[in-house]
Parts: sequence; C-alpha cells; structure tokens
Amino acid sequence: MTTRYKMVLAYDGTLYSGWQVQPKRRTIQGELERVIRQVSGHKARVHSSGRTDTGVHARAQVAHFDLPEAMEARRLLEGLNGVLDEDIRVASLRRVPATFHARYSAVVKEYRYFIWNGPVVPPPLRLYRAQVRNPLDEKAMVKAARALSGRHDFAAFSANPNREVDGTVRRLDVLSVRRTGSEIALIARGEGFLYKMVRSLAGFLVRVGSGALEPEAAKTILRSAQRTARVPTAEAKGLFLWRVRYPSS
Amino acid sequence: MTTRYKMVLAYDGTLYSGWQVQPKRRTIQGELERVIRQVSGHKARVHSSGRTDTGVHARAQVAHFDLPEAMEARRLLEGLNGVLDEDIRVASLRRVPATFHARYSAVVKEYRYFIWNGPVVPPPLRLYRAQVRNPLDEKAMVKAARALSGRHDFAAFSANPNREVDGTVRRLDVLSVRRTGSEIALIARGEGFLYKMVRSLAGFLVRVGSGALEPEAAKTILRSAQRTARVPTAEAKGLFLWRVRYPSS
Repeated sequence: MTTRYKMVLAYDGTLYSGWQVQPKRRTIQGELERVIRQVSGHKARVHSSGRTDTGVHARAQVAHFDLPEAMEARRLLEGLNGVLDEDIRVASLRRVPATFHARYSAVVKEYRYFIWNGPVVPPPLRLYRAQVRNPLDEKAMVKAARALSGRHDFAAFSANPNREVDGTVRRLDVLSVRRTGSEIALIARGEGFLYKMVRSLAGFLVRVGSGALEPEAAKTILRSAQRTARVPTAEAKGLFLWRVRYPSS
Repeated sequence: MTTRYKMVLAYDGTLYSGWQVQPKRRTIQGELERVIRQVSGHKARVHSSGRTDTGVHARAQVAHFDLPEAMEARRLLEGLNGVLDEDIRVASLRRVPATFHARYSAVVKEYRYFIWNGPVVPPPLRLYRAQVRNPLDEKAMVKAARALSGRHDFAAFSANPNREVDGTVRRLDVLSVRRTGSEIALIARGEGFLYKMVRSLAGFLVRVGSGALEPEAAKTILRSAQRTARVPTAEAKGLFLWRVRYPSS
C-alpha cells in the first residue's frame, strides 16, 4: 500500500531556479525529490500547492508525495532535514489520506510581498525585501488595493494572460497594505492566482505609492484586460508564499 | 584641516573575519578602509566602538575616520554604499568634532543574542540565530540573568581573562531574557564588556535554560572568577552589536 505524506515547507528561493524540476538547474522540487530518494530509498514525485518562480521564497508551501511503504513521519522529517541544505526546511510532515492533493485540495493561498521603503536595507533582510528608496504613499496604495480586491478579470496583472488555462478571472479575497516603520507588507489572499499576479499587483501598487499612477488607474487597468508597461513585475526576492489552506486544516 | 566623520554601520558578519584588519582576510574594517579610499581618494584609518569577532553581526556599530579635506556627508554616504557589498551598509554618516572618538566617547553598548528555540529555523533567519532544539526554560534563564546583572568580576565569563587590560570587573546594567514564540532574545547592556563576554553569558544561560545548570550556579561561577567548561561560548551567528550610545546622542 502506498502511503501519502503531506509536508509544510519553508525555503529561501535565492539560490534556486524556482520550484519545478528542470534539467541542470537547482530547483526546490528537484532537491526534495533527491533527498526523499536518499532517505527513503524510493523515487517519488513531489507535488506542491503550486510552482514558485526563480528567487521566490516560501514561509509555508505545502506539498505531498507517495512512498510504497510507510515510514515513521518523525524519522522521515528528521532524515530529510538532515540532508537538505539549510535554505530548505521541512517544517512538518504527516501521513494523509490518498484523497489529499497539495494542489487540488487547496482552498486558499496567501502571498506576502515585502518592501523596504528607505535608503538602507538592513543586511539580514537584503535577500528578502524589495527596496524602494523614495517614500511611498501607503494611503494611495491602500486605495488602489481596495479597488483591486474582489472578483475581477486580472488579465492585466498576469505576465502571460494568453496562457492561463482556467481563464483570467479570479477572486482576490484580501489585498491589503500595511506599513510598519520602513517596511511595507502587501498581503494577497485568494483561491487562485494568475502567473506572476502577486508580483504584478506589487509592481502596480509601488507605482501608485510613488505617485507615478493614481489609485483610480486600478479600475481602468482592470477593465482594459491588457498587460501594459503601467504594470511592471516587482522583483522576486520580496515575495513569500505565506500559507496554503485546506478544508480541514 | 582634517574633518572627522561618524558613521553608523549595519553588517552581516557571516563572510567576514571580524572587524579588525588582518593580512589576507576579509574584514569589516578592511572593507571600509578600502572603499573610503576608493570614494574619497584618501587613505583613512577607521576606528570603531570596539571589535566584533568573526561571524558576529552589527545592527548599529559606530565608527569614525578623518579625511584631510571635507566632503559632503550625503555624497560620501551614497558613494560608500554604492561600492560596498550589500552585507555592509552605512546607515548614517555625519561630520563630528575632532573630540569625538567612536571607542573612547562611547558610554553604553548594547548587544543582543538571538536563539531559535525549536526544531526548524526559518531559512531567512538561519545565519542570524543560534538554534537550540529542545525547549528552554526561560524562567530559569531570567533568574540566572538577574543574578548576573550589576557590577561583578566577570573573569569567568571572559574567553581570555588574563589578557583583559582593564581588569575583569564590569557593570552589566541590563541582562534580560525575552521569549517571543520560538525566539529568545538576550539583551546585554553596559559600559564595557570583556572578550567574548556576551557569548559566554549566552552559553551559560542556554545551559541553565536546558536544565544542565541551576540558576544559582551564576553566583558561584562569578565568585570563582575562573573560566571553566560550565561556561561555553555560544556561537557567533546569534550575536548582534545592537547599539552604542554617546553623551549627546
């Protein structure tokens, strides 16, 4: 009987070419599959709640994999963390029913995008914050974020709207902007996101905060359903996949 | 007329052999002197409030240096940050009277030592936290910290008591222990510290928190004025020079 395991993963994406296995590239999925094989003796495919791009981090990505024979979860977790580099950590691991699927069972995903709004980024944060030197007007950003919340056609906020298999309409349950001193956190929560959507929302909100666009531009850009230069993709290092929710978790 | 500049510095000590210039080693002082020469065209010696050891970080180290001709402070700061690696940042820079001395004018120094008390260190913190897997009893640590606060002969908490030029008596104004979830922060504030004193205090407090020593051991160890194996030196990466105070700042 195969046994399915669910893992919660934290990783620093700096040195990885994103989640997905690719030939000759170091990827999160590739590393996990390598160490699962090393620790369990079995080749397993690891499925996540969704891919993260090159340089994107995760605080709590969720993934699952199957093994042909059951291993004690705690031993497996310690084994994996023992051989993984410290920039990938298995935060928890447990057996789940075979009906659980990291991607298809997920009901809510939350991303957070972090901006350091000031001239000097504290060195320990340099790989985890996008820097914006000039003061951002977070009130304008909040206004624009409100206009973007809810159910919309987000084609203008996808890096590749023509390749979105499930169309470009999504419901953003939360899009909030919080300043704490020099740090601005953007929180995006919803059932699903388009390709590079959070970084596109972040890129747009930074332009609003810097005064290059009015908050009202949010509505006209949404309505256009066209990707334009008004929506830049913010850099990967500020983005964290923050958590993934499942019906019973 | 020479002009004296005071800098506040933040650095990630991971890749440096500490503060002090050494032949063939990458050091914080060495890097700063190199870039000051590059930006100003002048060779200057940089004096800090005190050395930090290999791998130790700084949130707000203070240093000064002299230039034979005045440069605009803002231009100098931007020039230095422009050529320094991102793991060293000049947070502020200003002209000060020649009577200011980063080391001799300092009246209070504060260090913070950070422990991640749990099985999994979040990857972005892995270079800035000492990990202790088993639960620490922070109440016992608080008790021991209280016994260590105040004016004492700290010879037992110096890595090299015989080489302390100013004797081994110091006044610890503050030694506190604060837990926030899995994180424990030790805060040490005082006029001056012995060699590796904060890491020795941290090493001792971790032993108390893990139950290997009673809080009451603090008093007997102080009284012994002897360095023994009961006081290990906690690893460098958890330590930050947090701030330095001067009479008028």
